[in-house]
Amino acid sequence: MWMKDRKFTEAEIINFLRQEFTPTSLEVRVGIGDDTAVIKKNDYYWLLTKDLLLENVHFLLAAHPPFLLGRKSLNVNVSDVAAMGGRPRWCLLGLGISNKVGRTWLKEFLAGFKTAAREAGIELLGGDLSRSTRLFISVTLIGESKSPVLREGARPGDILYVSGSLGEAALGLQLLKKGHRLGENPGLDYFLKRFLDPAPPLHLGQEIARAGFVSAMIDLSDGLSTDVHHLCQASNCGAEIWRERLPLSSELNQYAAQPLRLALHGGEDYQLLFAVKSEAEKSFLDWQKKNNSKLYPIGRLTKEKNVYLVGSRGQKRILQPRGFRHFD
Amino acid sequence: MWMKDRKFTEAEIINFLRQEFTPTSLEVRVGIGDDTAVIKKNDYYWLLTKDLLLENVHFLLAAHPPFLLGRKSLNVNVSDVAAMGGRPRWCLLGLGISNKVGRTWLKEFLAGFKTAAREAGIELLGGDLSRSTRLFISVTLIGESKSPVLREGARPGDILYVSGSLGEAALGLQLLKKGHRLGENPGLDYFLKRFLDPAPPLHLGQEIARAGFVSAMIDLSDGLSTDVHHLCQASNCGAEIWRERLPLSSELNQYAAQPLRLALHGGEDYQLLFAVKSEAEKSFLDWQKKNNSKLYPIGRLTKEKNVYLVGSRGQKRILQPRGFRHFD
Repeated sequence: MWMKDRKFTEAEIINFLRQEFTPTSLEVRVGIGDDTAVIKKNDYYWLLTKDLLLENVHFLLAAHPPFLLGRKSLNVNVSDVAAMGGRPRWCLLGLGISNKVGRTWLKEFLAGFKTAAREAGIELLGGDLSRSTRLFISVTLIGESKSPVLREGARPGDILYVSGSLGEAALGLQLLKKGHRLGENPGLDYFLKRFLDPAPPLHLGQEIARAGFVSAMIDLSDGLSTDVHHLCQASNCGAEIWRERLPLSSELNQYAAQPLRLALHGGEDYQLLFAVKSEAEKSFLDWQKKNNSKLYPIGRLTKEKNVYLVGSRGQKRILQPRGFRHFD
Repeated sequence: MWMKDRKFTEAEIINFLRQEFTPTSLEVRVGIGDDTAVIKKNDYYWLLTKDLLLENVHFLLAAHPPFLLGRKSLNVNVSDVAAMGGRPRWCLLGLGISNKVGRTWLKEFLAGFKTAAREAGIELLGGDLSRSTRLFISVTLIGESKSPVLREGARPGDILYVSGSLGEAALGLQLLKKGHRLGENPGLDYFLKRFLDPAPPLHLGQEIARAGFVSAMIDLSDGLSTDVHHLCQASNCGAEIWRERLPLSSELNQYAAQPLRLALHGGEDYQLLFAVKSEAEKSFLDWQKKNNSKLYPIGRLTKEKNVYLVGSRGQKRILQPRGFRHFD
């Protein structure tokens, strides 16, 4: 009887949840709609985030080495805490285990999970296990912060930066879908690893937050075109993105049929997108030089609410949010 | 290549996790192995719990009205916080949505979830959504407490109580498996509701914890025989369970083929099992009388480590942990 019903889209469900579940307690700083909820308690903040990874939706079991899948399943959550400049602390692991995986697979998966936990200083405190027809992973990560950076807070004139090259994970995903596998071709492994084993820049997020350079930050999980809209909407701004400044690696330009499309809409980069306060720009550049960090200015926030892609001769077109994440 | 591998049992995975992921930070009071993790921060405690509900493992989509499934998916987590005498505060909802459910189903589900949230004073702060071949629900609940009651802490001589009658949810599950559905037969609805719509005694848990009566507590989710072992192991005790004192309702005795078996091993009662400190027994009885509470003494903790079922003439047999939870 339920089947004939029209489906909700993901955005419709989130809007419905936002209306139905408006938090009213004073401690809640960020609730539904953001990837990470923020609770203020005494003089510090708790950061709560949860990401699902499903077989055939977010990963292909035969294509994803279990060690890397374990590491990724925690790291995609670490990315959400990194985007607030927070310190990840504790996690819970929910696992739906299918008949297709046995003891060796699970040990490898957990070894990868443990590596990510150790790298980021996270302790696993519990969770839940079930059998399942399809493998799935549900991780909840709890972080803390003295002063989290949010998506809101950017102002017109602030410069938008990304922390690394774009579109490579998306090319990796395309290659996986075409049947390429890790270890077959060293030239392609570079891209496959970007998708299979992302490494969120946790310390960078913490450092630039602590130094007070950034007015707003988000991680690039859905794709630049979508995530820049998230940041702009939360900050009540628009943006122009400078096409020629987008960090597209020479490898991407060499291997991808449409490198710009992957960089704009590809998703799963797990880089940081952040706005540097216009008054902090100079000290940020000094800091960057001193730390030898490679960070890429790709645009600036505007008063006008639209998001534009601006070409080398100043030509502008509206940049639609067309990010994607899932296997189809 | 992974398929030929021998499988881990659930207990083996938990043991493996315990070894591999021993928390070392001072804030962690309870970690892997308990249903609820406990973190101490300043002068209070955070309680973290996560329960998975999967289609065809924990529920049957066609047999579980969505409103009740939504309410249950939060309430099974509330039960874990109740068992520590805690106050549930915030939750995250992960949903894997299958093609079989549409807009009406989802709205009903969320209305049930919201009812449970409102009843227990919980705010939904976010989560994650995905499509999925089978429906699944992954809820993380965060509670707080000034002084949580743990599974450990019971001592020989303490009296074991349960907060309500046992085995009725298990009979409800049996009836569902036989094809009975809610609304068809008023006589059976009583049992079906026990399984489909459990109501954890949150306030009771908070009150007896606050009054200082209890030395240890756990919720009955796996079944009395298994959960009493959990409590005994954590408290480094054994127990005797008095067969004639187990609260089996006249309805259960009337409808069930093996009522004692359901009461001992049935699972999903979501009642509290707690040990009353021997020195608090008298004030606890006074309190019970004053509050007109129906609580059932069913045994006592012993120095000897075994768990026995003791009959009316004093005959003893070892009580094996044979609780179960899942659809097969």
